[in-house]
Amino acid sequence: MYPGYDMTPPDPRQTRELRLEIEEFHADYCWTLDCGDVERWPDYFADDAVYRITARENADAGLPVGLVYADSKAMIRDRAFAIKHTQMYAPRSMQHFVTNVRVLEAKGAGIKAQSNYLLLQTLVDGPTTIHQAGRYYDSFVRAGRRLLLKERQCVYDTVLIANDLVLPV
Amino acid sequence: MYPGYDMTPPDPRQTRELRLEIEEFHADYCWTLDCGDVERWPDYFADDAVYRITARENADAGLPVGLVYADSKAMIRDRAFAIKHTQMYAPRSMQHFVTNVRVLEAKGAGIKAQSNYLLLQTLVDGPTTIHQAGRYYDSFVRAGRRLLLKERQCVYDTVLIANDLVLPV
Amino acid sequence: MYPGYDMTPPDPRQTRELRLEIEEFHADYCWTLDCGDVERWPDYFADDAVYRITARENADAGLPVGLVYADSKAMIRDRAFAIKHTQMYAPRSMQHFVTNVRVLEAKGAGIKAQSNYLLLQTLVDGPTTIHQAGRYYDSFVRAGRRLLLKERQCVYDTVLIANDLVLPV
Repeated sequence: MYPGYDMTPPDPRQTRELRLEIEEFHADYCWTLDCGDVERWPDYFADDAVYRITARENADAGLPVGLVYADSKAMIRDRAFAIKHTQMYAPRSMQHFVTNVRVLEAKGAGIKAQSNYLLLQTLVDGPTTIHQAGRYYDSFVRAGRRLLLKERQCVYDTVLIANDLVLPV
Repeated sequence: MYPGYDMTPPDPRQTRELRLEIEEFHADYCWTLDCGDVERWPDYFADDAVYRITARENADAGLPVGLVYADSKAMIRDRAFAIKHTQMYAPRSMQHFVTNVRVLEAKGAGIKAQSNYLLLQTLVDGPTTIHQAGRYYDSFVRAGRRLLLKERQCVYDTVLIANDLVLPV
Repeated sequence: MYPGYDMTPPDPRQTRELRLEIEEFHADYCWTLDCGDVERWPDYFADDAVYRITARENADAGLPVGLVYADSKAMIRDRAFAIKHTQMYAPRSMQHFVTNVRVLEAKGAGIKAQSNYLLLQTLVDGPTTIHQAGRYYDSFVRAGRRLLLKERQCVYDTVLIANDLVLPV
């Protein structure tokens, strides 16, 4: 349970179209990251968006700390720039698998959902390993015909993640 | 192929709404387990439900044995109680990923489906590992607007699972 | 990005029914492989189908080489026969998880999509491991009410795959 996302969800049949739309959002978002197009990553966020990656134990304890924290699209853009232009790291392939999408709220402007993500990593000449597994807790807003993230809380179970390099999830 | 689930499935386009409904069932069911709310786990079953977790080699050989076996909601409730109140085990996070849902039968009261599940486990201070991978063979009944499990056969490929602690799947 | 699959995709809401149909195709296709029914595997392809499994680095470099290559249903059938009747290998269970389906093109006869696949392998008396993770780049044609693959490019991230035994993906 994540604070702000612990409501009783509506009947899934009433929110099915929204669930499918969110799945399609995830597929596009993850593809952008998986093909290394990190400069396009901020495009999925609203201007005042909050983005955080944090461990489940921190989330459970209500701690605000996180591996990554940004509270505006501008900060998200800064982070994307840093990854693209200043960080040095060994080439690797990343692949996201998103399943188990649940719509938690869908009244008017308020759209909330949770989803499971599995992030696989393959280093050159290495096996494919589980880099991070966790849950997205998302709040969306509508911008024209698109959904944008107003908040994405990535809460990972994986404690021992390589935190020398922190890529977006 | 699992006995009783080896029929020729109907055209998937005819059963799409049911497939989506089963996906939503899985998402709720798995979330209940993943957030450790095992006392709510029996709520997903009909009174006379059968629940079993068994290895693929046992299933293929037609053996009735299994890691877990319950043939009523009361037995399932007993098991939930035991996990909650009597077993001792190190804290861990579990996460289910369910994909590849196939509706196998959808005539009147008879609803059967199969799905792939991947269960990840993270021990405190450990990496995230594959705890169990397998298939659900499910029979559902309708109870008002909800689906309930009349039978769930969890058939896992993973031979070397830690069987000292058997959590529901 | 895979050559021929790098177009701007249509609005996902316009192609949702097709996306769901492709998910259903994947579920059937993968089940055929996962239950070892390799002789039925060619049934998912059109007569002039191209099938290839190749590493991402080869795909990125535009190299035509691959772990497996077939440019007709007849060649695919030959391969299925070889696996069934001539190759010797230790018994194992395979399980596919397919997620993140994106429709890339849907105009008239032209149907293109990409999807993520995770292929798990379990050897007898071994743990379940990640055998291969990658992406399907698919072109479909309609044959009556069914979809058939006109092209399937399986591009895997996993560099260190066991290439002594190459099963279909």
